[in-house]
Amino acid sequence: MEEIKTHSRIVVKKFGGTSVGSVERIEKVAERIYQDVQKGQRPILVASAMSGETNRLVSMAHQVDPRYRGEAYDMLLASGEQVSISLLAIALEKRGLKAAPLLAYQLGINTDSLHSQARILNINSEKLLGLVNNQMIPIVAGFQGVDSSNKITTLGRGGSDTTAVALAASIQADSCEIYTDVPAVFTADPRLIPKAKEIPTLNYDEMMEMASLGSKVLHFRCVELAAKYKIKIHLRSTFETREGTWILPEEKNMENPVVSAVTHEPLTAVIKLFPVPKGTKFIADLFSKLSENNVVIDIITQSYNEEGQRLAFSLPMSELEVAKDVLEKNYGGELGVSVLQDKAKISIIGVGMRNYSGVAYRFFKVLSDNGIDVELVTTSDIKVSAIVDKAHLQLAATSLHTEFGLDATN
Amino acid sequence: MEEIKTHSRIVVKKFGGTSVGSVERIEKVAERIYQDVQKGQRPILVASAMSGETNRLVSMAHQVDPRYRGEAYDMLLASGEQVSISLLAIALEKRGLKAAPLLAYQLGINTDSLHSQARILNINSEKLLGLVNNQMIPIVAGFQGVDSSNKITTLGRGGSDTTAVALAASIQADSCEIYTDVPAVFTADPRLIPKAKEIPTLNYDEMMEMASLGSKVLHFRCVELAAKYKIKIHLRSTFETREGTWILPEEKNMENPVVSAVTHEPLTAVIKLFPVPKGTKFIADLFSKLSENNVVIDIITQSYNEEGQRLAFSLPMSELEVAKDVLEKNYGGELGVSVLQDKAKISIIGVGMRNYSGVAYRFFKVLSDNGIDVELVTTSDIKVSAIVDKAHLQLAATSLHTEFGLDATN
Repeated sequence: MEEIKTHSRIVVKKFGGTSVGSVERIEKVAERIYQDVQKGQRPILVASAMSGETNRLVSMAHQVDPRYRGEAYDMLLASGEQVSISLLAIALEKRGLKAAPLLAYQLGINTDSLHSQARILNINSEKLLGLVNNQMIPIVAGFQGVDSSNKITTLGRGGSDTTAVALAASIQADSCEIYTDVPAVFTADPRLIPKAKEIPTLNYDEMMEMASLGSKVLHFRCVELAAKYKIKIHLRSTFETREGTWILPEEKNMENPVVSAVTHEPLTAVIKLFPVPKGTKFIADLFSKLSENNVVIDIITQSYNEEGQRLAFSLPMSELEVAKDVLEKNYGGELGVSVLQDKAKISIIGVGMRNYSGVAYRFFKVLSDNGIDVELVTTSDIKVSAIVDKAHLQLAATSLHTEFGLDATN
Repeated sequence: MEEIKTHSRIVVKKFGGTSVGSVERIEKVAERIYQDVQKGQRPILVASAMSGETNRLVSMAHQVDPRYRGEAYDMLLASGEQVSISLLAIALEKRGLKAAPLLAYQLGINTDSLHSQARILNINSEKLLGLVNNQMIPIVAGFQGVDSSNKITTLGRGGSDTTAVALAASIQADSCEIYTDVPAVFTADPRLIPKAKEIPTLNYDEMMEMASLGSKVLHFRCVELAAKYKIKIHLRSTFETREGTWILPEEKNMENPVVSAVTHEPLTAVIKLFPVPKGTKFIADLFSKLSENNVVIDIITQSYNEEGQRLAFSLPMSELEVAKDVLEKNYGGELGVSVLQDKAKISIIGVGMRNYSGVAYRFFKVLSDNGIDVELVTTSDIKVSAIVDKAHLQLAATSLHTEFGLDATN
């Protein structure tokens, strides 16, 4: 055993927006914490804004100025968590517990100054442990930080998960519980694939791929941070007591399934450019201009034959109009542009792929057997992704889920 | 002229809840500020929470625990102003102005630790002036402060007005504009007395009496603070540009009307006790017990004759049930208690009374001529108050308003 001082009785518990989405639910969370404390746990809580609240705040900001990002925007959004942690504190105090609601500046969650996507630099873990040792229950506002000028920052979408894992890392806890409205991570979205089943364990790489590939359960940065500090994440339901999915370091001798999950993103578009100037200069220039306009490019393919150079890339449907504007404004007339709408991305993920060959072959064979054409493809050592017609998404996902032995047996 | 450094071009402007009650109204406020800046003004803004927001937050807290007051309650309520100043900042930035939204901890509005009724100890005026000198527009969250442990405090009802006057005092400004949804202070509530007219100037003593006697326009502490630091208050409408009411130091040679205003409180009750133990010990004990239960006593009368000692006092209807409980629990059986409901308090206020005799006589004559009985009475050098039947309130107020020459002439 390594000589690390772990605070194993101290558990960081993060409650998502639906878990604190109403006064009644906040009461239920408080009751659960009360029971945990009776069993000897010493919890540190993190809460998101009440569900719907962040959207309400964003909508007001957008009504004033849809383009504004900066200090005031982060201050506005951070108010959501301030409300939920205050109410949770009152609910715990009502049960005779001593609660310490903490905003980022009060605890010392110090970040850089990149508003709306700030990174945590350090956390005042001594203050946190001091409170716990005084029998207090810290309730930390998720999603927010404070920069060196005492300005409020926010960590981006899913930021409360990142806060929770960062807190766990700062006090060298060995795990972090993420409470949400689903009981576990599933092998696929059960709304798309009714035979999807719960996954008891995943490792960090798989979870990061899933987060990148459209699974909304946990955000990439939170898992990345957990991997960096070896914090086990236990994702589980706020409304049930049974265990959910553990996200863990990869164990060498563990028998992993070849494929752990099938994920999808339904709202995808593809832009094809032909002919484009040869070489990488044009491509670098294009992607820089798209990036400046906040268009996120996903899969990119490039090919060259005697007819000329071709470029194709996929992007979220929501960013298609901006991307078309960028192309028109910067290269209008120079380029042949064709746009494919109503596409979807389908992916398979699994660390087991590293040890098995032929996974990509099976992936394409399944699609081919079902008469599904593939537009763009990308792979890594633990995933295969392809762009297909949105109309084929259900069939593609269902077939792949069955092919790789993920279907629930009951 | 005194050698005080005044920042006469710097104007503190406070916007109430209805003034920032929607995104549209926030835009209108921003437009008005933009015009002020074009004219060379250097504004410092203070905002209340959007109208309805504080009540929404209080209601959630009460659903969890109606009895809780403390750190989390203040943190919860302070989120309201955080939202309004952020949105106002975005609206100013959209117009090309540089806005600095400031929460209490960011500016340094330091208070004692009395949650929900904290008092401001000091304000970092250097920071405020530094921002203004850098062509920034500070937008300060009203109603909130921060104590020496970095915990959020709130200043009590109407606290944003207090914040505004305290800011003005801290930078030695000579005036403070309070923007609200009424155009001025009136000689009486126009809903009760249609002939009520606007008052162009009032002095601090009169405004403090009005605040104590049921006028909801400005809160007592705000006016008290303005009087202490000789800050002129200009109360005016957010939605019109004309001037409203100036609240000023009393000028010796000013010709004051005898009575400046008639005020009323419609929801009053009277409790009469007979017989009570002789002497002040019982009375002190009783009022201490009522105070512990947050019952605010208003007019008190005490009398003694051969039958025994009598005590009577008025209180808000909303606190009657609690007061009755306190009496029953502590003195049940010992005391004869009679309760008069549906009473109202009617008052006349004016510094001119100091120079004229016979004002009280005229007050009672008017009531008597109209057949209105009076239950309890209290006077000071600038006011006369009496408790009457609520059914007589309109008649009493109208008659007094006419008697003292306050009726509008058009």
